[in-house]
Amino acid sequence: MRLSRYFLPILKETPKEAEIVSHRLMLRASMIRQQSAGIYSWLPLGLRVLDRIADIVREEQNRSGAIEVLMPTVQSADLWRESGRYDAYGKEMLRITDRHEREMLYGPTNEEMITDIFRASVRSYRDLPLNLYHIQWKFRDEVRPRFGVMRGREFLMKDAYSFDTDMERAKEAYNRMFVAYLRTFRRLGLTAIPMRADTGPIGGDLSHEFIILADTGESAVFCDKALLDLPIPGEDTDFTGDLSPIVKAWTTPYAATEEMHDETAFAGVPEERKVAARGIEVGHIFYFGTKYSEPMGAKVAGPDGTERPVHMGSYGIGVSRLLGAIIEASHDDAGIIWPDSVAPFDVGLINLKPGDAPTDEAVAVIERELEAAGLSVLTDDVDTRAGAKFAAMDLIGLPWQLIVGPRGLATGEVELKRRATGERETISLEAAINRLTAGRR
Amino acid sequence: MRLSRYFLPILKETPKEAEIVSHRLMLRASMIRQQSAGIYSWLPLGLRVLDRIADIVREEQNRSGAIEVLMPTVQSADLWRESGRYDAYGKEMLRITDRHEREMLYGPTNEEMITDIFRASVRSYRDLPLNLYHIQWKFRDEVRPRFGVMRGREFLMKDAYSFDTDMERAKEAYNRMFVAYLRTFRRLGLTAIPMRADTGPIGGDLSHEFIILADTGESAVFCDKALLDLPIPGEDTDFTGDLSPIVKAWTTPYAATEEMHDETAFAGVPEERKVAARGIEVGHIFYFGTKYSEPMGAKVAGPDGTERPVHMGSYGIGVSRLLGAIIEASHDDAGIIWPDSVAPFDVGLINLKPGDAPTDEAVAVIERELEAAGLSVLTDDVDTRAGAKFAAMDLIGLPWQLIVGPRGLATGEVELKRRATGERETISLEAAINRLTAGRR
Repeated sequence: MRLSRYFLPILKETPKEAEIVSHRLMLRASMIRQQSAGIYSWLPLGLRVLDRIADIVREEQNRSGAIEVLMPTVQSADLWRESGRYDAYGKEMLRITDRHEREMLYGPTNEEMITDIFRASVRSYRDLPLNLYHIQWKFRDEVRPRFGVMRGREFLMKDAYSFDTDMERAKEAYNRMFVAYLRTFRRLGLTAIPMRADTGPIGGDLSHEFIILADTGESAVFCDKALLDLPIPGEDTDFTGDLSPIVKAWTTPYAATEEMHDETAFAGVPEERKVAARGIEVGHIFYFGTKYSEPMGAKVAGPDGTERPVHMGSYGIGVSRLLGAIIEASHDDAGIIWPDSVAPFDVGLINLKPGDAPTDEAVAVIERELEAAGLSVLTDDVDTRAGAKFAAMDLIGLPWQLIVGPRGLATGEVELKRRATGERETISLEAAINRLTAGRR
Repeated sequence: MRLSRYFLPILKETPKEAEIVSHRLMLRASMIRQQSAGIYSWLPLGLRVLDRIADIVREEQNRSGAIEVLMPTVQSADLWRESGRYDAYGKEMLRITDRHEREMLYGPTNEEMITDIFRASVRSYRDLPLNLYHIQWKFRDEVRPRFGVMRGREFLMKDAYSFDTDMERAKEAYNRMFVAYLRTFRRLGLTAIPMRADTGPIGGDLSHEFIILADTGESAVFCDKALLDLPIPGEDTDFTGDLSPIVKAWTTPYAATEEMHDETAFAGVPEERKVAARGIEVGHIFYFGTKYSEPMGAKVAGPDGTERPVHMGSYGIGVSRLLGAIIEASHDDAGIIWPDSVAPFDVGLINLKPGDAPTDEAVAVIERELEAAGLSVLTDDVDTRAGAKFAAMDLIGLPWQLIVGPRGLATGEVELKRRATGERETISLEAAINRLTAGRR
């Protein structure tokens, strides 16, 4: 992509309304634009990251055996009356009346609707286990939206819902999501720690939050440092097998959010391994048994022919919130430092002298070669000062910068910079291309 | 994907509420489920098609130079007051009041919001041309939603918005979308005819609808048969060049929707080339000049430093509606016939005797080979009657069926069926795999 044809209206000034670094950087890098309180447009750079995050989430959901659907954003109030949550949900629910005076709402979550889909089509234990997920916009009418996409009102969430014949099998479904979440967050470049959590308005008696540690986190968290070094289950994990040993390894060391914190238990953690920090919730999983299936009549016949309500769980990942969380965990004074897996472009290719024919030509050749190897490239072909180019590239945080100018080209050299380390190297054009495309073709 | 682990709750009975064939088939094939009037969940099979259509739309938008963004579904009423449309829009607009009594709405289209994004960040003619698009859910509170996804209330639309310094350049932008639309619909397996159209609530003085001919179409259309045979611009089309000859070729023969129909002009079409038929609108493009930029103050400075309102156009494709339109254009008594480009799976692999070890083994090998070649495969590994398997495969309309059973395998043979023609061939296993994977590796 050529910058001259792209839409990247970078802000020179730091927006005053932004209280935390991720919000400031997302606004400055023109990833998002606020349209109303807690409601954002995703500009091209932000959307690319959002899509890459969603793709990783999707891949890991699919790997675990979950199946993708897409439920609408607008729901009927009647469905929520069946579970009793329509009145209970409070002001966070955005209530809507349509032209025929029917009561509707903008879905804050989808337990009721997925239960409705299930009861309409599944009759037998033979169709289980089943886990359906979607990645869809939700709305929660927060009284005080803030921190940019971290606590927005309209936000993108992945929510999965599992259906099983009994508690034991439902816990297997829970374990599959638990492991999928460990893999998902690691692939996003995050260290997320599962912590026993309160179940809140979803209900149920088993729940973990996945929390990443960050100074700007919204809640206090307490855990055993051992959790930071546990290995993540590999790509070859057998999701049809017994995952309980993995879950056990991850749930045995102490870890809890503020609400669930137990000073007595925490005292048992060796002093040098005690972590008391602040955390950002990026995922939340629940087992809630028959809380929805019972009142809504979602039953399946067992092998003996008897119908019983299914045991359910739900599993959320805050997809749009993850952009903020990743930036909170990965930035420096100059800007964002994207993990390779979610960067909006792999390489920022800087033309130091647009209009100079040999430089333009060299840049075009490099761009072609990198793209042919499957790399995405943002080429700065705009006629601005070198200092402004470097600052903008650092701000938007692409993993690699390749700097090409007439002086270096005279001796066949370019400069390659790794954003994360700041390391810069002057090397031959060929070596730079080889370095970037290694393992790609 | 194994059917035994998939979610495909096919309906045996034809749903009574469905008036047109695409709606009936989408319900029977469990592609969608109605949640409220005009509001649907997309079940796994439907979502796969929706995603494939959106991907083709996206590729052709990108090819034409448009840049993807994503605007939120919920908008502020104030923005619509600036253009004067908040009061003018009527009951089709779903109006919402949030917890702080602020007036909001669920966006039916995005002219105002994109103009707001533009005016906040673009100042100079040097940043033009610019075309920003998004693929996002919209809501129109139709008084009588019907025909399934063809006239739903919550629907997925691609809408693009172009910004140029003057009318001449705006028409170049219009032409780029015109050509992109010709390519998009052809890639979706459709013959879409651009017709001069009324501009309706969007406004402006130049507009074309892209219409496919179908008996169940919502409006009468009239055109010259010559349009059905015009060549579609190729993949190598230069979108930075002059596209007006292509647009001229497509707009010279007579074509008009009911509202714009001119009997006198139509009389000039030779009798044998007159087409009077019914049509389904799948796209609509508009040039409306400064209708929004003027009241909303979206101006850029020209080379002489003078600020002038930008000239705009907007360009819509009904992405979710296209599923219905494609089915209306491509089905038979047995079910859907998907064009290869949007089929939910490329191949339906039918195991005639699940549980029979040699058959299971052969099916597993075939599945692996096809998937390794990049084909998507839905394997029917469920223990049901052969007749039910064939009927279900015909209903869901995958382009190829590969039928594997113990009798054929005894002589190394399988049956290959092309859904569109019904042609069936008994050939060797190897030949079948070669046929399906030809040109794929």
